[in-house]
Amino acid sequence: MAATENLTIELARKPSGKLTPDCFRESAGPVPSPADGQVLVRTILLSVDAANRAWMEGATYRSQVLEGAAMDGYALGEVVESASDRWKPGDLVEGDLGWRLYGVHKAEHLLPTGDHRPLDQQFSALGIAGKTAWHGLFGVGRPQPGETVLVSAAAGSVGCLVGQMAKAHGCRAVGVAGGPEKCAWVRDELGFDACVDYRDGSVLKAIAAQCPDGVDLYFDNVGGPVLEAALFVMNNGGRVVCCGAVSQYDTDQPTSPRGVPGLLVVKRLRMEGFVVMDFADRDAEAEQQIKGWLADGSLRMPVDVFDGLQRAPAALIGLLAGDNKGKRMVRVSPDPS
Amino acid sequence: MAATENLTIELARKPSGKLTPDCFRESAGPVPSPADGQVLVRTILLSVDAANRAWMEGATYRSQVLEGAAMDGYALGEVVESASDRWKPGDLVEGDLGWRLYGVHKAEHLLPTGDHRPLDQQFSALGIAGKTAWHGLFGVGRPQPGETVLVSAAAGSVGCLVGQMAKAHGCRAVGVAGGPEKCAWVRDELGFDACVDYRDGSVLKAIAAQCPDGVDLYFDNVGGPVLEAALFVMNNGGRVVCCGAVSQYDTDQPTSPRGVPGLLVVKRLRMEGFVVMDFADRDAEAEQQIKGWLADGSLRMPVDVFDGLQRAPAALIGLLAGDNKGKRMVRVSPDPS
Repeated sequence: MAATENLTIELARKPSGKLTPDCFRESAGPVPSPADGQVLVRTILLSVDAANRAWMEGATYRSQVLEGAAMDGYALGEVVESASDRWKPGDLVEGDLGWRLYGVHKAEHLLPTGDHRPLDQQFSALGIAGKTAWHGLFGVGRPQPGETVLVSAAAGSVGCLVGQMAKAHGCRAVGVAGGPEKCAWVRDELGFDACVDYRDGSVLKAIAAQCPDGVDLYFDNVGGPVLEAALFVMNNGGRVVCCGAVSQYDTDQPTSPRGVPGLLVVKRLRMEGFVVMDFADRDAEAEQQIKGWLADGSLRMPVDVFDGLQRAPAALIGLLAGDNKGKRMVRVSPDPS
Repeated sequence: MAATENLTIELARKPSGKLTPDCFRESAGPVPSPADGQVLVRTILLSVDAANRAWMEGATYRSQVLEGAAMDGYALGEVVESASDRWKPGDLVEGDLGWRLYGVHKAEHLLPTGDHRPLDQQFSALGIAGKTAWHGLFGVGRPQPGETVLVSAAAGSVGCLVGQMAKAHGCRAVGVAGGPEKCAWVRDELGFDACVDYRDGSVLKAIAAQCPDGVDLYFDNVGGPVLEAALFVMNNGGRVVCCGAVSQYDTDQPTSPRGVPGLLVVKRLRMEGFVVMDFADRDAEAEQQIKGWLADGSLRMPVDVFDGLQRAPAALIGLLAGDNKGKRMVRVSPDPS
């Protein structure tokens, strides 16, 4: 083992309101050795997700990240040293490797990952973002060709795929994103039929204008005022796929959409939340279809990479402010040869 | 035809905030004669529903009731005179007969109704209340035996049936109602396992205390703070059946539940609205099962009858204040022999 220096980024203090750089601190130290049943993993790519912020507030589908602890984070890495029969050096793995260059992990806490190159595509279109988009759209929302699919955070890692998948399925895809430049990118680069700038005037009127036949399926990544507007524009029998609530994570004063439950009754709407892990039994089907779409060009996976673990706090803070286009990740080490 | 005097109750003015008696006025006049294709119907039983109040605010699943017009209302009546091949005198019909003793209606706007006696049972357990409870619980909520079913407005026309049907299906049934006397009635007379008084302290804590295994299915008739509390107590994979929002109708300042959409994502909840008419293809199945339960005593249909059309405003105002136990209706004429 060549490396002896490790780097970890810790949550120095729980944020109150907006996340700021001083919530984090770097911590150097020796590279640990795996005990029996453990493996040492070098992080290659670290996923940066809005949910990282929610983990700081309290328990969700997982436990809270506590002050003083290393920041948690989903990552792709390479096994460097193994004290387990399950893995050998060189294996590519995924799991909650955390914000660290090297880490030891229980062998059973890691999952095998594919070797689709470059690994940033494996880790996005074929990773959690791609599976979240696919299971949420087809498993929960179940759109019919010809329906109008509205998706918020349309420039984000999941949203950018949802709209493209909806198009590939024969639907009309309308995005919601922040700012004219992002909206143009969603429309012109990703091929959505339209994209609404939620920062420009009434989002309700803008959605209604871009969805003249109403909205049949709303894929919600943001909650708050955009969810409220969508409820008012939904067609009877419409479905709201609740994937996330990024507008609500980076604040201690969340808002609630009006129209709940009144509009759900009057319009016979279904609103349903999901977590990607629940659909693992259909992962192979998702992967196969996504690989096909990547190969024939009907799906593009834009990635937005920050170089160096030290830049992880900036990557997350920027993501929460909405400055990403596509899947944001941190390049911690180069792809292995 | 013996009668020549008719009576109608009109919406004198649109209410602002709480509904008050001066929003209505009585109007006497001659009994009308049916034109070609019409029938004259004498109202027997008039249904009083929280939704009547919502109709005054604007269009919902139906058009608004306008100032100066006769109040609309679903009712059961007897055909007195017919100028249509479709109906003959003596036929029992249901439809939007309105708040009137006699009315002429287009023949095709009326539906046949059963002759289960007394007619107050036909018009409640076997009418819209019974079908709403059955379709909402089994068609939308789909409980499994052993699950915990929470139902609000548990002393109301639909809620009182939902809990009893859940029990008959092998579930644990917990009600939410207003005041200790109603709660005792729901528990002791209707056989719910428990009933929470939402006016007594923290409804969240009270629900949690009465649902030690969490809530798998919440049948929501009220919206607002009780819906919010239920979301926090729901188990993963839970379902919220959105049937109505009575806490929101009699106000011009509706509230929104916190936790939407965050809790839907984290707990993988499904919230789904419905309107009873959408399930007409399963009405026969519902009727058959309800008749069986009425016959074997596993379902009791409490009715709460006001005598005389003039008392319809008081019946509705009281209902909105939560003073009913079971299905509220107005007896406009006696059952025909």
